Amino acid sequence: MAQVVSNTKVVLKGYVTGFPKESDLIVKTDTIELKLPEGSKGVLVKNLYLAADAHMRSQMSVAEDNFVETYIVGEPIHGYGVAKVLESGYPNLKKGDLVWGIVGWEEYHINNAPESTLFKIEHTDVPLSYYTGILGMTGMTAYVAFHVVGNVKKGDRVYITAAFGAVGQLIGQFAKALGCYVVGSAGSKEKVDLLKSKFGFDDAFNYKEEKDLDAALKRYFPEGIDVYFETVGGKMLEAALLNMRLNGRIAGIGMISQHNLEEEEGVRYLLSVITKRLTMRGFIVHDHYDLIPQYHELIVPLIKKGTIKYVEDVAEGLENGPAALVGIFQGKNVGKQVVVVARE
Amino acid sequence: MAQVVSNTKVVLKGYVTGFPKESDLIVKTDTIELKLPEGSKGVLVKNLYLAADAHMRSQMSVAEDNFVETYIVGEPIHGYGVAKVLESGYPNLKKGDLVWGIVGWEEYHINNAPESTLFKIEHTDVPLSYYTGILGMTGMTAYVAFHVVGNVKKGDRVYITAAFGAVGQLIGQFAKALGCYVVGSAGSKEKVDLLKSKFGFDDAFNYKEEKDLDAALKRYFPEGIDVYFETVGGKMLEAALLNMRLNGRIAGIGMISQHNLEEEEGVRYLLSVITKRLTMRGFIVHDHYDLIPQYHELIVPLIKKGTIKYVEDVAEGLENGPAALVGIFQGKNVGKQVVVVARE
Repeated sequence: MAQVVSNTKVVLKGYVTGFPKESDLIVKTDTIELKLPEGSKGVLVKNLYLAADAHMRSQMSVAEDNFVETYIVGEPIHGYGVAKVLESGYPNLKKGDLVWGIVGWEEYHINNAPESTLFKIEHTDVPLSYYTGILGMTGMTAYVAFHVVGNVKKGDRVYITAAFGAVGQLIGQFAKALGCYVVGSAGSKEKVDLLKSKFGFDDAFNYKEEKDLDAALKRYFPEGIDVYFETVGGKMLEAALLNMRLNGRIAGIGMISQHNLEEEEGVRYLLSVITKRLTMRGFIVHDHYDLIPQYHELIVPLIKKGTIKYVEDVAEGLENGPAALVGIFQGKNVGKQVVVVARE
Repeated sequence: MAQVVSNTKVVLKGYVTGFPKESDLIVKTDTIELKLPEGSKGVLVKNLYLAADAHMRSQMSVAEDNFVETYIVGEPIHGYGVAKVLESGYPNLKKGDLVWGIVGWEEYHINNAPESTLFKIEHTDVPLSYYTGILGMTGMTAYVAFHVVGNVKKGDRVYITAAFGAVGQLIGQFAKALGCYVVGSAGSKEKVDLLKSKFGFDDAFNYKEEKDLDAALKRYFPEGIDVYFETVGGKMLEAALLNMRLNGRIAGIGMISQHNLEEEEGVRYLLSVITKRLTMRGFIVHDHYDLIPQYHELIVPLIKKGTIKYVEDVAEGLENGPAALVGIFQGKNVGKQVVVVARE
């Protein structure tokens, strides 16, 4: 007889408009039988760490198109996490394996598509929670944005928004290591100071204190911007377009300013794309997951040596999950927001 | 003693805001000595044909940035044309050569930078006026937009705005030849009919008759657009963004709807660049002029065989130049707008 255990989960209460609130999510406790259904090719896991990621916002609303898989009201939300395999019907994973990938926000979870959504953790000599961020989707996002989409070259002038976010921190460090001039913006003095003192950015500024973003960028980039890492959209994108250099690249990572608006803001100055021969390119990180082993070989030694700095903001327990997730849209987190479900 | 002859020219009266009017340009007649200055490395040419091109609009306004070389008030405007060399201080061109490239809107013109702005005409068994369009900058724009920037592949669903313009006609024909599904939009029933009957587009529509551009695109592209050739900007770009397919490409050729506005319109739905992994890329055709011989080898035989159709709208005489140029911003031209200065 399979063991039946209690299973606490974070469930979507209803579709969200505007900024998400803690009350849009419900923490509730059911039970689960710790056994895969007969003939399942899926994997039963025990969750350890969950990532609170900005992209989850778009799954909390009624789908506007087919490109986002919306959460189901009344069901657990899901996202990236780290978990331990309890039972497997999938030949490439076995009991006891540690994995990262897509899991539900609950203590125990059955993943029915492990072949495309779960990755076996090969390097265990680093903190396992790092696979919610620097060693997982976040890190791969930074790696792909930097090398594949941004095509950054030595000497480039690089501007990073949401620079203190997990992706921004990493891109900034990649850029400094390559010999670029790197400026980041963030939303508090504390973050700005850390970008300069801890992460080695050439400069950084608090965008909330700038009345005129165009003037701010002209101050930090008198000769213009070669590569802009776009995470904000709206007015920030307009200011960046005004300050791009010839043949500049805009790597589209996200547009967090737009997710919580009822209607997207219009963006002016797109004529610059033509006059300055810009390339603006969006990407979805999982199109590039074939690069994971290559990325881990690069980054794991740098993490162990301390060459690459990484900051986590840890919330303990699924019951604190809703506040942690909602907090990232208010800029409350300092570094990658992790929710600890269990430590082993 | 060098011959002194009369030289009629089209001069900019003052910087333009909004739509250009005929009265923004003055036709006047001076004299010119048909001789290069002592030691000149330039070229004295007799102009034959001039192109009235949309990109000239941005040179008629006070420069907003360093990426556009503004015309000088009181001086002849300039643009692409076909001319005959009368005297040359540039070793690669000699008296009697036919050239295409940048010339002033006047009967006789001295070009002081022939090495970067004039190209010797090698194929003379096609109408010379074609070098103002299909064999010149316009043709190269279509070629680069299609092959280099749009990266069009067999079976792609292709949408072309200003499809009856010289660039649009060509791109549509390239796309049909490659086996794509091709829809164009234009501003009159006459143009729409010709796109289908003469240029072989799968379908075409009059954008002026569409209240809802998004709905129109959904009608012609129920499965979405792979490649959008952007010549319009503004609301048309918004509708295209809503209808792009995954991994779609937006080739930025121009944004003619924006040139005559005091301030650029804001464009919504740029979040699609990220969610649908789009690439939006601007280019300047003269960055790709190394491809001219390759393009001519492809296109000249197709023109001679009649495989590629090409339409010119010919204005006779420099005195009709202002009306011809102003007319293209009102969609008056049918095909490439050429101004004949002299036929030999």
